[in-house]
Amino acid sequence: MTQNTIKISEKLQRRIAFLSEIEKLKVVYRQNSVINGTRAENSAEHSWHIAIMAMLLLDHSDAHNIDILKVIKMLLIHDIVEIDHGDVFLYDKKGNETKDQNEQQAARRIFGLLPDDDAKEYMDLWEEFERRDTKESQYAASIDGLQPLLNHYLTEGIGIKKHNLKTSQIIEKKKYIKDSSEELWMYALELIKKSEMLGLYEKE
Amino acid sequence: MTQNTIKISEKLQRRIAFLSEIEKLKVVYRQNSVINGTRAENSAEHSWHIAIMAMLLLDHSDAHNIDILKVIKMLLIHDIVEIDHGDVFLYDKKGNETKDQNEQQAARRIFGLLPDDDAKEYMDLWEEFERRDTKESQYAASIDGLQPLLNHYLTEGIGIKKHNLKTSQIIEKKKYIKDSSEELWMYALELIKKSEMLGLYEKE
Repeated sequence: MTQNTIKISEKLQRRIAFLSEIEKLKVVYRQNSVINGTRAENSAEHSWHIAIMAMLLLDHSDAHNIDILKVIKMLLIHDIVEIDHGDVFLYDKKGNETKDQNEQQAARRIFGLLPDDDAKEYMDLWEEFERRDTKESQYAASIDGLQPLLNHYLTEGIGIKKHNLKTSQIIEKKKYIKDSSEELWMYALELIKKSEMLGLYEKE
Repeated sequence: MTQNTIKISEKLQRRIAFLSEIEKLKVVYRQNSVINGTRAENSAEHSWHIAIMAMLLLDHSDAHNIDILKVIKMLLIHDIVEIDHGDVFLYDKKGNETKDQNEQQAARRIFGLLPDDDAKEYMDLWEEFERRDTKESQYAASIDGLQPLLNHYLTEGIGIKKHNLKTSQIIEKKKYIKDSSEELWMYALELIKKSEMLGLYEKE
């Protein structure tokens, strides 16, 4: 075998430690299902889906000059904190009480594996996403909120039917999409209506 | 339910048709395994992993001024063509004979679901990735080549041990990483050596 001629830098080693750790996100499962119903969707493939949605749906956003690279970075890393405590279902009241504190701890541990500058960049991105106080984080959150609605409809609600979600609950949790895009919110309402007609959500 | 006030544009409808179609990539499985050995890794979560690797490892690349947004877009969409014919294992000679033609057809069908401008953009990105004739596509390909080596090592080769891969075969297929980054190639060789010592590849 060829001999190494350059020493691997500490920076690279720390980045690889992080990239190895996040391998675990592929086995953090959500309530939603994959298309053939064989298993639950995981947070890594969900993150992949929303990153593509964000780049494709950008011009449906009502805000202008959104930094799309920042949005994509945010979406790719926003769920990494679930490695330590799992994904909390949006409609799970009890689980959501401890979610913030648990995820803060996880963020410090996992992003803390990175070299200091990277750790700061990713921690800042994650916190911005959580705060939703910039146009990038608001748009990113609206895409993160839209994807599950598309997934429910496409998978005929295999994963979530057992939770007997009500249309009114869904609308309450998703209505913030409207703040980023009137058109995407109209589309979300159309999806919700179609899913309700298929019996995936309970009418109220 | 709130009544729709804006009409959903044809552009949005076509983009959603594409975003619905790619839901299927989550059930295109690779030879590699997830970390707990419970199932094969799929092409969607693989794409998520390499997009994050690309953004984190950028300054280990030997090329300068790489357009990282373009790299990330490429990596997120590069495997979508596998929806029609599945993932072809890098070391499968027979499967690789028909791969190019099959994937060309799939690219035309799947990117063709998009509005014309988007379809052109994504088709161009996919073709650039396949040709590896720009610094962006070369860097993207080197990351796409590195991730399976990390995965083999982290998962103790659960998915690939049965193929009795030889170290020399791996080096032959992966040596192009060196053209993008001397340091990443040194790291790849270190990974290959460690995996060989664990018995994941056959010494030759």
